[in-house]
Amino acid sequence: MHTIFELQQLIEKAIETTEYPNHPARLYEPIRYIMSLGGKRIRPVLLLLSSELFNDDVTIAIDGALAIETFHNFTLIHDDIMDKAPLRRGKDTVHIKWGENNAILSGDVMMVEANKHLTKLNIDILKAALDCFNVTAQGVCEGQQLDMEFEQRTDVTIAEYINMIRLKTAVLVGGSMKLGAIIGGAAEKDADLLYDFGVNFGIAFQLQDDILDVYGDPLKFGKQVGGDIISNKQTFLLLKLKELASPEDLGQLETLTFTTDYPTKIQAITQLYNQYNVRELAATEMQRSLDIAFSSLESVEISIDRKKELTQLAESLINRES
Amino acid sequence: MHTIFELQQLIEKAIETTEYPNHPARLYEPIRYIMSLGGKRIRPVLLLLSSELFNDDVTIAIDGALAIETFHNFTLIHDDIMDKAPLRRGKDTVHIKWGENNAILSGDVMMVEANKHLTKLNIDILKAALDCFNVTAQGVCEGQQLDMEFEQRTDVTIAEYINMIRLKTAVLVGGSMKLGAIIGGAAEKDADLLYDFGVNFGIAFQLQDDILDVYGDPLKFGKQVGGDIISNKQTFLLLKLKELASPEDLGQLETLTFTTDYPTKIQAITQLYNQYNVRELAATEMQRSLDIAFSSLESVEISIDRKKELTQLAESLINRES
Repeated sequence: MHTIFELQQLIEKAIETTEYPNHPARLYEPIRYIMSLGGKRIRPVLLLLSSELFNDDVTIAIDGALAIETFHNFTLIHDDIMDKAPLRRGKDTVHIKWGENNAILSGDVMMVEANKHLTKLNIDILKAALDCFNVTAQGVCEGQQLDMEFEQRTDVTIAEYINMIRLKTAVLVGGSMKLGAIIGGAAEKDADLLYDFGVNFGIAFQLQDDILDVYGDPLKFGKQVGGDIISNKQTFLLLKLKELASPEDLGQLETLTFTTDYPTKIQAITQLYNQYNVRELAATEMQRSLDIAFSSLESVEISIDRKKELTQLAESLINRES
Repeated sequence: MHTIFELQQLIEKAIETTEYPNHPARLYEPIRYIMSLGGKRIRPVLLLLSSELFNDDVTIAIDGALAIETFHNFTLIHDDIMDKAPLRRGKDTVHIKWGENNAILSGDVMMVEANKHLTKLNIDILKAALDCFNVTAQGVCEGQQLDMEFEQRTDVTIAEYINMIRLKTAVLVGGSMKLGAIIGGAAEKDADLLYDFGVNFGIAFQLQDDILDVYGDPLKFGKQVGGDIISNKQTFLLLKLKELASPEDLGQLETLTFTTDYPTKIQAITQLYNQYNVRELAATEMQRSLDIAFSSLESVEISIDRKKELTQLAESLINRES
C-alpha cells in the first residue's frame, strides 16, 4: 500500500508527463496551465486508494485518476466562466487569461481528453468504468445547474441545498472512489459501498467547508474568513439561520445583505449564527453524513487493516483547517 | 438496404424517443429544443449507411448515430455562443433563449449524453468506437479554435483554410462514417477508407457551401446569397482572390470590406471573383477532393451495388442548391 504522499507524487508525475498536441497552441495551453495549478488532488488520490483496496498494482488506476482530475479541472474552467471568477488557486482563471471563447473550447476538449484517458482502461471493466464516469459527470452538471438557479432564489430549503452539494461536489468524490474500485476489480456491491462512502463523505466535506468559511482560523484558512458571508452565499449556515431566526432577526439579516461595510457584516451575521447555534447544527448534520459514510466503508468486504490509509485520509480532511 | 428517407425516419424516431431527466428542467430543455430543430441529419444518415454496407441490421448503429448527432448539436450550442449567433435554423439559439451560462452547461451535459449513447454499443467494438469518436471530437474542437483564430488574422493561406475546414467540418463526416463502419463490423482497412471518403467528401461539401453562398439561386438557397461577402468571411473564394488580385484590385477589396451598402458590396466582390475565375478554381479544388473521396470509396471491399445508396446521397449533396 502506498502513502497518500506517494499517491500524490504518482498523480503529479502522471499529469506532468501527459502529452497534448502542440497545435493549436491556444487550445491546449489552458489545459497544461490549469492542470499544473496543483491542489490536493483529493479525487484522484481517493480513486487510487479505492483501487488499491482491491489490487496491489496501483498503476492500473492511473488513467482513471487522470480522467477524473482532467474532468474536474474542465468543470473548474467552465464554472469560473459562469461565476465570472477572476482567480483560481490565487492565479488568473483561464477565461481571464485566454478569453471566454477560448475557455469554453479548451474546457470542451478537456472533456474529450478525460474520455481518452478512460479508453485506456482494461477492456474487461471498460463499460462499467464508462457508465460510472458518465453518471458522475452528469450529476456534476446537474449540481452546477442547481447552484446557478439557487443564486436567483430566496426560498431554497436545506434539503434542496444538501441535494445540490451532493450533485455538485459529493457525487464526484463518490464516482472517483467507485471508479477506482471498479478498476481494482471490486465486486459490484463493494464498489457501490465505496460510492456511498464517497458521496456522504463529500457532503460532510462541503459542510465542513461552510463552517470553516465562517469559523476557520484566519492564519490557516487560506481564503478570506467570512467570504461566503460577504457574497451572501446560500450555505447550510445561512439557510439554517433563515429557517430559525425570529422576524426581527430576519429583518436585520435582510438589511445586512446590502451592507458594504464587510467587517461589520461578518461580525453581525456570525453573531446571529452563534445566537441560533447554527454552527453546532451544521456540525451535527456533518456528523450524520460522516456516520453513514464510515458505516458504508465498514461494510466493504476487505480487512480493516487495508482500509487504514483511506480512513486516516478521510479523518484528516474532515479535521482540516483550510 | 434502407433508403435515405427511411434512415432519416429512423433517426428522427430515435431522437424523439430519447429520454432525458426532467430535473433540473433548464439543463435538459435546451437539449430537447436543439435536437428537435431538425436539419438533414446528414452525419447520422452517413453513419447508418456506412454500417449497412457491412451489416444488414441497421438498428445496431442507432446508438452510434445518436451519439454523433448529439455531439454535433452540442458543438452547435457552444459555437453559437462563441460566434454570438442569434439564430440557428431560423430559431433563437440556445444562449439567446436560456442565457449563456445555461447554454455552456447544457452543451457540457450533451457531451455526456453523447458518450452515454456510445457505451450502449457492443462491447466487442466499444474501444474502437470510442477511439474513433474521441479523435473526431478532438479534431472538431481544434477546427473551431482555428476558425476563431483565423477571424483575427489577415494572412490565412489556402492550405491553412483547407486544414481548418477539414478539422471543423470534414473530420466529423469522416468520423461518423468510420464509426458506422466499425459498428457494422468492417475490417479496419475498410473503416479507414470510409473515413478518407468522409473527410474528403466533407471538404468538398464545405467548398460547395462557399460557392453556393455567392452563386446560389436566391430562390432555392435558404440563406441570404452573399452572406459570407457581407460578413467578410474568409472563404476559399476570398482567400483565392487575395492570392491572385492585382494591387489595385486588392485596394478595392480592402475598401469594400468596410462598405455597409450591401447590394453594392456583394455585386462588386462577385465581379472580382468572376474576373479572377475564382468560382472555377474553387470548383476544381472541390473536384480534386471529390476524386480522392470516390477513389477511397471504390477501394472499400464491398460490391458496387451495396455502395449505390451512399454514392447517390453523396452526389445529391454535392449537386445541391441549398
